[in-house]
Amino acid sequence: MIKYCNNCGKPTIPMAPNGDDRLRDVCSVCKTIHYENPKVVVGCVPRWEDKVLLCRRAIEPRYGKWTLPAGFLEIGETVEEGAKREAYEEARARVIKLVPYTLYNLPFIGQIYIMFLAQLADTHFKAGHESLSVDLFTENEIPWENIAFGAVKKTLKKYFTDRKRGEFPFSMGDIQPS
Amino acid sequence: MIKYCNNCGKPTIPMAPNGDDRLRDVCSVCKTIHYENPKVVVGCVPRWEDKVLLCRRAIEPRYGKWTLPAGFLEIGETVEEGAKREAYEEARARVIKLVPYTLYNLPFIGQIYIMFLAQLADTHFKAGHESLSVDLFTENEIPWENIAFGAVKKTLKKYFTDRKRGEFPFSMGDIQPS
Repeated sequence: MIKYCNNCGKPTIPMAPNGDDRLRDVCSVCKTIHYENPKVVVGCVPRWEDKVLLCRRAIEPRYGKWTLPAGFLEIGETVEEGAKREAYEEARARVIKLVPYTLYNLPFIGQIYIMFLAQLADTHFKAGHESLSVDLFTENEIPWENIAFGAVKKTLKKYFTDRKRGEFPFSMGDIQPS
Repeated sequence: MIKYCNNCGKPTIPMAPNGDDRLRDVCSVCKTIHYENPKVVVGCVPRWEDKVLLCRRAIEPRYGKWTLPAGFLEIGETVEEGAKREAYEEARARVIKLVPYTLYNLPFIGQIYIMFLAQLADTHFKAGHESLSVDLFTENEIPWENIAFGAVKKTLKKYFTDRKRGEFPFSMGDIQPS
């Protein structure tokens, strides 16, 4: 919610602008319309032999839980650049050969996840400042009960299923509130 | 740019918060950090026999130019729901059988386009309030010199190329500033 105008600092009022059927926070003075839109989370499945790289989170939410490297897309970068940046920030990992893999909707929190399949360029990874630790896991070693986010868990499940068939099609799905 | 705090209305200062290497607009009083992130545009290629539906824009930018129905994803909806909503808003068109088709990055303006292939459920379409007119076009009839947006033109070009092969794989690309 935008309580005060970004442009002039005066209070906003929720109203539907002309030709719009949704309430927006509109400035009571300068009339600036403030749109709030979903955010994009980008990440990847970094693969090395029969293992994938996971990061143990050093930040909230889900401190101490495991995740694939992923984070909010920034203005000025492509989704692929964002996924590479996050792998480096969270795991000091260099990832290559990125292929679009999953898109998950989380409409209840206004997010979409876009995840790539990727290869680790080497095993010189280590925890970035948002991670407690970083490690490689086979399917049986994955801490399934301690995965931080639904979209990450679904992407991992899909990966190990696809791996058995040797086909990795792009797919889209929805995450329900947990 | 967020000149005034959304939360308290006081001026912001550009600074890199702890653990962040980017400048954010941070409130000088309540310290709220304001993140600005890319927006997602969702839309579709509505097909009917050998034609596709295009809308002639009744709004800026690109007033009078032709486009596929598309617009900003809203909080609370999935990308597929957003694409269906835009087809209805701009062309009063009901679209079915949506399949993810293209993702284009426009990093220079902080946008990504996610476009679906779709079928028109029927031909009872007409201009919504953001369109001057709506019509069906074969490949040869498309007004190629008057397409509103690069991501729309690329999606249309890809569609008519793929149509010749009978295969419609999902693909990703970048749009350069025009």
